[in-house]
Amino acid sequence: MGLTTGHRVGLWLIGACGSIGSSVALGLAAMRRGLCGHEGLVSQLPVFKGADLVPLEAIVFGGHEVRDVTLVDAIQESHARAALFDADLMHPCADDLTAMHAAVRGGSVLGATPAVRVMLDQSAVRPQARNIELTPRDAVNRLADDLRRFRADHGLAHVVVINVSSCESNHEASEALHGRGELDAILASRSEGVLTTSSIYALAAVEAGCAYVNFTPSLGISAPAIRARADERGVPYMGCDGKTGETLVKSVLAPMFALRNLKVLSWVGHNILGNRDGQVLADARTRAAKIKSKDSTISDVVGYKPATHTSIEFIPSLDDWKVAWDFIHFQGFLGTKMNMQFTWQGSDSMLAAPLVIDLARFAELELRRGAGGPMKHLACFFKSPMDVAERDYFTQWTRLVRHVGGAMD
Amino acid sequence: MGLTTGHRVGLWLIGACGSIGSSVALGLAAMRRGLCGHEGLVSQLPVFKGADLVPLEAIVFGGHEVRDVTLVDAIQESHARAALFDADLMHPCADDLTAMHAAVRGGSVLGATPAVRVMLDQSAVRPQARNIELTPRDAVNRLADDLRRFRADHGLAHVVVINVSSCESNHEASEALHGRGELDAILASRSEGVLTTSSIYALAAVEAGCAYVNFTPSLGISAPAIRARADERGVPYMGCDGKTGETLVKSVLAPMFALRNLKVLSWVGHNILGNRDGQVLADARTRAAKIKSKDSTISDVVGYKPATHTSIEFIPSLDDWKVAWDFIHFQGFLGTKMNMQFTWQGSDSMLAAPLVIDLARFAELELRRGAGGPMKHLACFFKSPMDVAERDYFTQWTRLVRHVGGAMD
Amino acid sequence: MGLTTGHRVGLWLIGACGSIGSSVALGLAAMRRGLCGHEGLVSQLPVFKGADLVPLEAIVFGGHEVRDVTLVDAIQESHARAALFDADLMHPCADDLTAMHAAVRGGSVLGATPAVRVMLDQSAVRPQARNIELTPRDAVNRLADDLRRFRADHGLAHVVVINVSSCESNHEASEALHGRGELDAILASRSEGVLTTSSIYALAAVEAGCAYVNFTPSLGISAPAIRARADERGVPYMGCDGKTGETLVKSVLAPMFALRNLKVLSWVGHNILGNRDGQVLADARTRAAKIKSKDSTISDVVGYKPATHTSIEFIPSLDDWKVAWDFIHFQGFLGTKMNMQFTWQGSDSMLAAPLVIDLARFAELELRRGAGGPMKHLACFFKSPMDVAERDYFTQWTRLVRHVGGAMD
Amino acid sequence: MGLTTGHRVGLWLIGACGSIGSSVALGLAAMRRGLCGHEGLVSQLPVFKGADLVPLEAIVFGGHEVRDVTLVDAIQESHARAALFDADLMHPCADDLTAMHAAVRGGSVLGATPAVRVMLDQSAVRPQARNIELTPRDAVNRLADDLRRFRADHGLAHVVVINVSSCESNHEASEALHGRGELDAILASRSEGVLTTSSIYALAAVEAGCAYVNFTPSLGISAPAIRARADERGVPYMGCDGKTGETLVKSVLAPMFALRNLKVLSWVGHNILGNRDGQVLADARTRAAKIKSKDSTISDVVGYKPATHTSIEFIPSLDDWKVAWDFIHFQGFLGTKMNMQFTWQGSDSMLAAPLVIDLARFAELELRRGAGGPMKHLACFFKSPMDVAERDYFTQWTRLVRHVGGAMD
Repeated sequence: MGLTTGHRVGLWLIGACGSIGSSVALGLAAMRRGLCGHEGLVSQLPVFKGADLVPLEAIVFGGHEVRDVTLVDAIQESHARAALFDADLMHPCADDLTAMHAAVRGGSVLGATPAVRVMLDQSAVRPQARNIELTPRDAVNRLADDLRRFRADHGLAHVVVINVSSCESNHEASEALHGRGELDAILASRSEGVLTTSSIYALAAVEAGCAYVNFTPSLGISAPAIRARADERGVPYMGCDGKTGETLVKSVLAPMFALRNLKVLSWVGHNILGNRDGQVLADARTRAAKIKSKDSTISDVVGYKPATHTSIEFIPSLDDWKVAWDFIHFQGFLGTKMNMQFTWQGSDSMLAAPLVIDLARFAELELRRGAGGPMKHLACFFKSPMDVAERDYFTQWTRLVRHVGGAMD
Repeated sequence: MGLTTGHRVGLWLIGACGSIGSSVALGLAAMRRGLCGHEGLVSQLPVFKGADLVPLEAIVFGGHEVRDVTLVDAIQESHARAALFDADLMHPCADDLTAMHAAVRGGSVLGATPAVRVMLDQSAVRPQARNIELTPRDAVNRLADDLRRFRADHGLAHVVVINVSSCESNHEASEALHGRGELDAILASRSEGVLTTSSIYALAAVEAGCAYVNFTPSLGISAPAIRARADERGVPYMGCDGKTGETLVKSVLAPMFALRNLKVLSWVGHNILGNRDGQVLADARTRAAKIKSKDSTISDVVGYKPATHTSIEFIPSLDDWKVAWDFIHFQGFLGTKMNMQFTWQGSDSMLAAPLVIDLARFAELELRRGAGGPMKHLACFFKSPMDVAERDYFTQWTRLVRHVGGAMD
Repeated sequence: MGLTTGHRVGLWLIGACGSIGSSVALGLAAMRRGLCGHEGLVSQLPVFKGADLVPLEAIVFGGHEVRDVTLVDAIQESHARAALFDADLMHPCADDLTAMHAAVRGGSVLGATPAVRVMLDQSAVRPQARNIELTPRDAVNRLADDLRRFRADHGLAHVVVINVSSCESNHEASEALHGRGELDAILASRSEGVLTTSSIYALAAVEAGCAYVNFTPSLGISAPAIRARADERGVPYMGCDGKTGETLVKSVLAPMFALRNLKVLSWVGHNILGNRDGQVLADARTRAAKIKSKDSTISDVVGYKPATHTSIEFIPSLDDWKVAWDFIHFQGFLGTKMNMQFTWQGSDSMLAAPLVIDLARFAELELRRGAGGPMKHLACFFKSPMDVAERDYFTQWTRLVRHVGGAMD
Repeated sequence: MGLTTGHRVGLWLIGACGSIGSSVALGLAAMRRGLCGHEGLVSQLPVFKGADLVPLEAIVFGGHEVRDVTLVDAIQESHARAALFDADLMHPCADDLTAMHAAVRGGSVLGATPAVRVMLDQSAVRPQARNIELTPRDAVNRLADDLRRFRADHGLAHVVVINVSSCESNHEASEALHGRGELDAILASRSEGVLTTSSIYALAAVEAGCAYVNFTPSLGISAPAIRARADERGVPYMGCDGKTGETLVKSVLAPMFALRNLKVLSWVGHNILGNRDGQVLADARTRAAKIKSKDSTISDVVGYKPATHTSIEFIPSLDDWKVAWDFIHFQGFLGTKMNMQFTWQGSDSMLAAPLVIDLARFAELELRRGAGGPMKHLACFFKSPMDVAERDYFTQWTRLVRHVGGAMD
């Protein structure tokens, strides 16, 4: 099961030219050229040295995108808005990005929820994506074909599909999606609204035999009927919602209070952000889902329900920056009330992009091992890890290292 | 080795009537009377349920104190200054505190460093403490006798001595203290300055067969010649410098950056505090030692040397509150610089006091097990744990749970 | 118009036994007894030395209250919950508070809005207040009689009525209240909902010839028909919504950005608080009004509309503390984006109470001067000052000093 | 005295190619080309519309520089390190900067203090500057000649000299500099150390009939003997130490506490910064002077001495960013202790550069008005304004507007 020479792996992003997607592309190019280090890449930590992960050079970039934009455009816009990375890093990689962009295909907007539609209305949409398929089945077939062709064209051993597209608004699977038998009827029907786009993509990944990872809080593979197909097919999958900033800190700090028997009275978290993700979250229903995903961490870790409040607001001037302020009110010895607060100022895309590469490498390892089902050992990467109750980062971390076979000290 | 009925354990504090000491006393009384919960007590966490720790009711309070003050005075002064706990909690416990105070003996000021002397000059000093012994040997003998009498008078199975007195200024053991043979000569000599008070107390604890824990950054048992005696005598010991606030947070947050491969560029920590501890730290040499103890955590966890800066300032208006502001500058994917900052507002004594009780219970378990030497499994309680390189809180925690036999999940 | 010996002035609070009201009472007693300083009292600043304000000793406390609670109970509850002030300050003043309480009368709940009703349902209500009048006219008459009797009983030269009761939810005056002629019909009608309680109190104050100050965002005297009566009667009045914490800071910081030509891109303010005020604000409609009042300051000062967002959340564990976090994103030279953030941790009642005393003294000066109408020079005390556009604290301050005749340097 | 067509004014910077100097140059170019707005420029505020300030287009850039670097190099280095401004803004201005650089002359290092020398040792030094004059008189003559030639070559009506070079370490004028008569002897002497470089430049400005502004805490024109010459010569001058960030906020917030009669118990300010200024401040003596300049604001505004503590640390990873955290502990009604804290994250150069342009315009107005002596109306620009006791920003601001004849509303 060891890696052989010439073993190449596809990383296929749904939302390839978004801010995360284009950062992944630029990062792969810049790291290969030695223009930047491996900061932010968990899979590059010494503990995983012996884990036989696919080398960064063997990762081939591809993806689906609905907006009519190239990777080069996307990364330039990103830089112009927030100047997160050095311009000198972008120019030498322009040709690489153009080459990568050749593997980007038009996505589908079938089943798009209102907030996503608003965002699309403001963008030029790719012809392919505009030409909406009539039924989910048609869309699944086209998207899965794209994946198969990608594998064939590049001689890839495996493909990992990761959803980094805009967050959808409704995250509860409709009744219909619970029964496995009904799925074919839904796929054949022209009435929209039962399957959202993220689940259509997920099914395409499953049918094409790819691993699937949902980095967003959208439904995706969590729709029971879709997940059942993945289990039948034996592909590995995981989600939901990448743990990149404030929730990461929560999952590290909450255990401290728990292990010191300090009672958390209330934990208030306010998030402000300015990128497209924030814009989509301006939709109240979308935001509600995201907040739920963020809010559960504290009670899960401490084992009781403190007063918690989480807000997310779209503040355009912040561009790709996300600023979070958390206030923790806690009670110690003799009932004494004390407090702690933190402010996190991070670039959303730059925190997410390396984790996407990590997830591709870890998921590919499962494909190589022939393992299917939920990759619970990847819980530390997600705000709402599928089938995993633990929210404590360190417990999650230990699980990852043990599973992958890292040398834990 | 299980606990038997009537098994009683002594908790002997050096600095019994200071703000930590009096909080320990009040807490023991208030918890027994059911006036407050067990917040802040690590040893009360469910994970230690089966660990056969001595019950809180079986702990007998005693200690040495040099200032001429009672436990009731001390706790009232503490409340008047900062109103950390409810006054209603203090009144019903007044008689308990008076009873506990009967077991407080005059300490020694032999070997006191300049900063401590300044503080003493501002206080009324107990007659016993004022009547300075002529040689360290005299002092050790008297202090050890106090410990033996305490054990005998209260029918105690074991006594744990914990140093919670003011921080001394010189933390490096002098040359002379490295050679084991010279110790007797030093003890017999009338020239002050080789052995500081904290080491005199530590030796008394060792000679009286007590466990010894150094909750301060003072030298105490770390003087090689003293430590050698402890090893010979086979008593368990540990230190130094209780990890209660900012450094605790550091030991929890630094691993997050390390495990996410986010490069810490700089970590600046500013501490302001207003209690007697702060006053003693106003002395530059004392502060330097404390800062060193706080500053090493980051590099130890991340494995390289970011720019670090730690300051401690005495701001009297804060009374027992310690406010710390930390700014962490870090670098992620594509070299992007981001930052995080936190402000911690905690009551120093209220964070320390429950840990002192925890340490007594864990140390007593070692006495009961017949174990001697450094209690390395208690590393998570200290800023500079003896003989332990790990500063990562979660690694330290796992060690504690495993050693004590807790039910780790 | 100078003060004569024996000149006594009534300070009548609507909500006399709330946390602000009881703090005012305790403060008056404690300052008279020399138990505390004059911190927080603007009217005690040297600049007003020559302004002939009524001395603190000449202020007589009275008020309306609907909950069945005494001033002593109220202040004890307040202390038990948050320990803001020293208990030693409370005990010697207990008799004074009891004496003051003799002048507290049952208020009215006629016209109470839903959020206030919820709060009332959780409290014991005074018999007087429970015995609801049938029409607003009946209520106005009873309340105004209470005011007249207060003046007569204590031989008061003037009475200033200040509303410090819970915030009501609807702040827009209904259509009916715009026409002056209709007021008598509304007052006579048994159908509730047109006049809210705060306006009923305001009219009572006007009819009893008292000055009226609205320290809350409730409608009060701002209902056009009520205000018209005040103008006819020639009494001085002012409001709305005391500027005590976060908005105060905004009104001081926003001018800094304006005067340095730094462009405010966005200003986000999050408030969390735990007292009864917070509980009432948990009602969405009530909160909306409060937020509007807070949110306008920035644009008013800088002269354009940055992205602003203000939230208020009820976090019970905070008791009387209000914590506000503000994040200001601004643009400087060459378009460079920078930011500033602040956290304010203040006790709401302790910030408000002294301003209530200040307002009583400044309003009494107007009564003595025979001036009526809006006291625009008091703008610096309010979030939404009536008839005043300026939100800049320093401009407002200059206006106060000039009007009162203070010695501005 | 109105402006005439063709009226051109020289802005001569001591330290022309430092980060402030190069930002001024880029800003002048970019504003002329309409590539950026006027953010940060106080003199562009509407209130100064009628004040007849010299237009931005009429300002001619020149200066002294000791390091062997061009303006284009400097601005590129600045951008590469911190990406504060858009690269698109830099490229179209490259030719303008090259043209401006033609008016940059080699400065003098005679009298440089140790910290400056260390910085110089790490840089290539201009041949002119390296060729050290033998006596201060020689240096003054050469520098003054440069100024006269600049005026003649560009047909300038007036020249304003502004010191934006690195901060010197000793800020107290030596005894010798107090006696006016001795100055000539000092100037003729070859023994270094009495006159520091900043005073040599100041005298050159005076002798060349230029206005002089000291934007640094260095001694400059504050040496009594130098200042006496300026008074004799009748040139306008002002300083010291530009108020750009934390101290600006202090001068705005401290009045709020004062005007609300809230007693400041302690005010702690920690500054971390990463640019050359920070590097020079790493020298303890230099830092001490800077801190003194920052620390006095609070007591000056509130009128008593709270506990204050200010620190400045050099943290290279921050590049041009300065992060300041201030904690304010204050006491309100009934002695209640509360607190406020703020974090300021600003780019030092970008905050300073526009003020340098403002100062040039305001100083030139004085030259045109024929006024000499200290320009006290410019106090709001400085941490330690000469001859002005007020530190309150708003009082200082009113003074500026009144003096300049702005339309204060």
